[in-house]
Amino acid sequence: MATQGQVITCKAAVAYEPNKPLVIEDVQVAPPQAGEVRIKILFTALCHTDAYTWSGKDPEGLFPCILGHEAAGIVESVGEGVTEVQPGDHVIPCYQAECRECKFCKSGKTNLCGKVRSATGVGVMMNDRKSRFSVDGKPIYHFMGTSTFSQYTVVHDVSVAKIDPKAPLEKVCLLGCGVPTGLGAVWNTAKVEPGSNVAIFGLGTVGLAVAEGAKTAGATRIIGIDIDSKKYETAKKFGVNEFVNPKDHQKPIQEVIVDLTDGGVDYSFECIGNVSVMRAALECCHKGWGTSVIVGVAASGQEISTRPFQLVTGRVWKGTAFGGFKSRTQVPWLVEKYMNKEIKVDEYITHSMTLGEINKAFDLLHDGTCLRCVLSTSD
Amino acid sequence: MATQGQVITCKAAVAYEPNKPLVIEDVQVAPPQAGEVRIKILFTALCHTDAYTWSGKDPEGLFPCILGHEAAGIVESVGEGVTEVQPGDHVIPCYQAECRECKFCKSGKTNLCGKVRSATGVGVMMNDRKSRFSVDGKPIYHFMGTSTFSQYTVVHDVSVAKIDPKAPLEKVCLLGCGVPTGLGAVWNTAKVEPGSNVAIFGLGTVGLAVAEGAKTAGATRIIGIDIDSKKYETAKKFGVNEFVNPKDHQKPIQEVIVDLTDGGVDYSFECIGNVSVMRAALECCHKGWGTSVIVGVAASGQEISTRPFQLVTGRVWKGTAFGGFKSRTQVPWLVEKYMNKEIKVDEYITHSMTLGEINKAFDLLHDGTCLRCVLSTSD
Repeated sequence: MATQGQVITCKAAVAYEPNKPLVIEDVQVAPPQAGEVRIKILFTALCHTDAYTWSGKDPEGLFPCILGHEAAGIVESVGEGVTEVQPGDHVIPCYQAECRECKFCKSGKTNLCGKVRSATGVGVMMNDRKSRFSVDGKPIYHFMGTSTFSQYTVVHDVSVAKIDPKAPLEKVCLLGCGVPTGLGAVWNTAKVEPGSNVAIFGLGTVGLAVAEGAKTAGATRIIGIDIDSKKYETAKKFGVNEFVNPKDHQKPIQEVIVDLTDGGVDYSFECIGNVSVMRAALECCHKGWGTSVIVGVAASGQEISTRPFQLVTGRVWKGTAFGGFKSRTQVPWLVEKYMNKEIKVDEYITHSMTLGEINKAFDLLHDGTCLRCVLSTSD
Repeated sequence: MATQGQVITCKAAVAYEPNKPLVIEDVQVAPPQAGEVRIKILFTALCHTDAYTWSGKDPEGLFPCILGHEAAGIVESVGEGVTEVQPGDHVIPCYQAECRECKFCKSGKTNLCGKVRSATGVGVMMNDRKSRFSVDGKPIYHFMGTSTFSQYTVVHDVSVAKIDPKAPLEKVCLLGCGVPTGLGAVWNTAKVEPGSNVAIFGLGTVGLAVAEGAKTAGATRIIGIDIDSKKYETAKKFGVNEFVNPKDHQKPIQEVIVDLTDGGVDYSFECIGNVSVMRAALECCHKGWGTSVIVGVAASGQEISTRPFQLVTGRVWKGTAFGGFKSRTQVPWLVEKYMNKEIKVDEYITHSMTLGEINKAFDLLHDGTCLRCVLSTSD
């Protein structure tokens, strides 16, 4: 390719300061170094984690940076030693790496690969602890090891899932974060069994993916809980078959759910990131076996609490990151499941825009009618 | 038997008021009603839960009462409909019932039978919601459905484990609480695998039983943590092979353990009942898979807390009651294991006294050299 080994100048949405509108800039993207992959991003969606870091509430947020972590594209070029993908491959960048070599990957117990964490956590690449992005020579930090709000990005090879080239990238970009997180919370972390009762707190994209996961796992009662009753209509399509609005009740929501389910649910999922709701989600679980999974990301510094009696009497408190999926291995499998119509993806996409409209897209995130907004990066 | 159907007058240690010495009294023990069993208690040990309720800190504690829940004896008589035990059977009363009929027993997921809980929780028997104990016609409350600080007690039939008559009752009385709690926390709740690293907070009887359970489960590193370094010598005999005294370190104990174990332990157990230690026990677990089990009972009203990030990054927070053992089914099995020398029991018994010396025995509980003190109830 003509661009291989060259710096590429392209459009990207740069977050210069917390809470200030993103700026569409001409950004220089350096070629990939050893173990790196440069990807032409075609479609990227927005997720609440982008908004959280942008808001300035994330103490690990670094500025200026290029946000974005739910996307799909095509490999433009690869650095030295990269063998598993090559230019032209269709890929999904994964904020959760999978090196298959580290203590975590080899444990067989977790998807939390530690290989590149020390670099991606501070907005740089492993090889030289520097960024591949710059504007007029000034470095721009990477974000979550993905930085997909750009026409081109550079990621570590352990963070690239190669997918079926027939898959529509404008859809499967969603398999980079929210949908797998919800499905995997049910399938991998909670391991919901047929006949279970399930409570889902928060009916955004992740909560709906939990509902879908619970339905395919054979859960009987799938109770959606949200302070916006309008969400029930959409949620039904994903498997939610009962709805509770905490605002309609005087009692704490955990008591409402316990009463409704003869002692509590078998599994609950917190898909908001609110520590009080996390407590309610645990406490609405059935004594003896109820398992609560924290899926939402709480603001920094916040803490969860409960009486230890809740655990001593058999409830289990867990959490999940990227739904426990091994990214490079299982994202392609999720793409196959989508292609075989075994999981939904299209149904989460409520809005489509261009990268240039990204600030409008962020506004939409706070609108209850928006699940996912997919941005095309083409001009 | 001459006593069958009659009120029996016998000695018992009555707790009239919180924190006041127990009084050895002539107590009237009514005959067992339908579904009840009257047991001649021969040996009873003391446990910290007795001391907790006696202290008045337990808001559910009722006075006057007869404490005690770790004991062994012989069935004196049975009420109508009792088929699984008969007079002369050697038994261990179980504070955790097992009815094999309720939602909990049938779930296959928990040992927390709910059958008699509504009565035992308020110090009475199910049949008539009254006590079988009285002094001069004034009722004395039951405790934990067992009340073993008495020469005779009445319990529900679902709370009686029939054991091998060859088993020495002065030893196997310990299988009514502390030892199974520790072993079961490892075997049933945590399911420790061979090669695991384990941290045990608190090296009392329960902590030592956790160590023994971990050793038999094949754990490699068994780290004991206690503020009394003298406990390490004894703990070695139960499988502890490393010791940390938090007082010897400036850093929080969770950081000390994480450093010592290259990222944290696979399993941790809190065997004290201190909510700050429960947090430390969770946070010293390895990212991705570390599981922490709360075994100790915290004082009423106290809460555990942590950052949700601890769970989202793969740690699991659980608890256990009676080690997850099904009491009627598995206590006899534990007795067999003891008879076959597969588990320790004798080694926990550091003191032997008579029921009349019970106040002295309670003082001993706060002495670091005492594990279990077994009281003979004979005069």
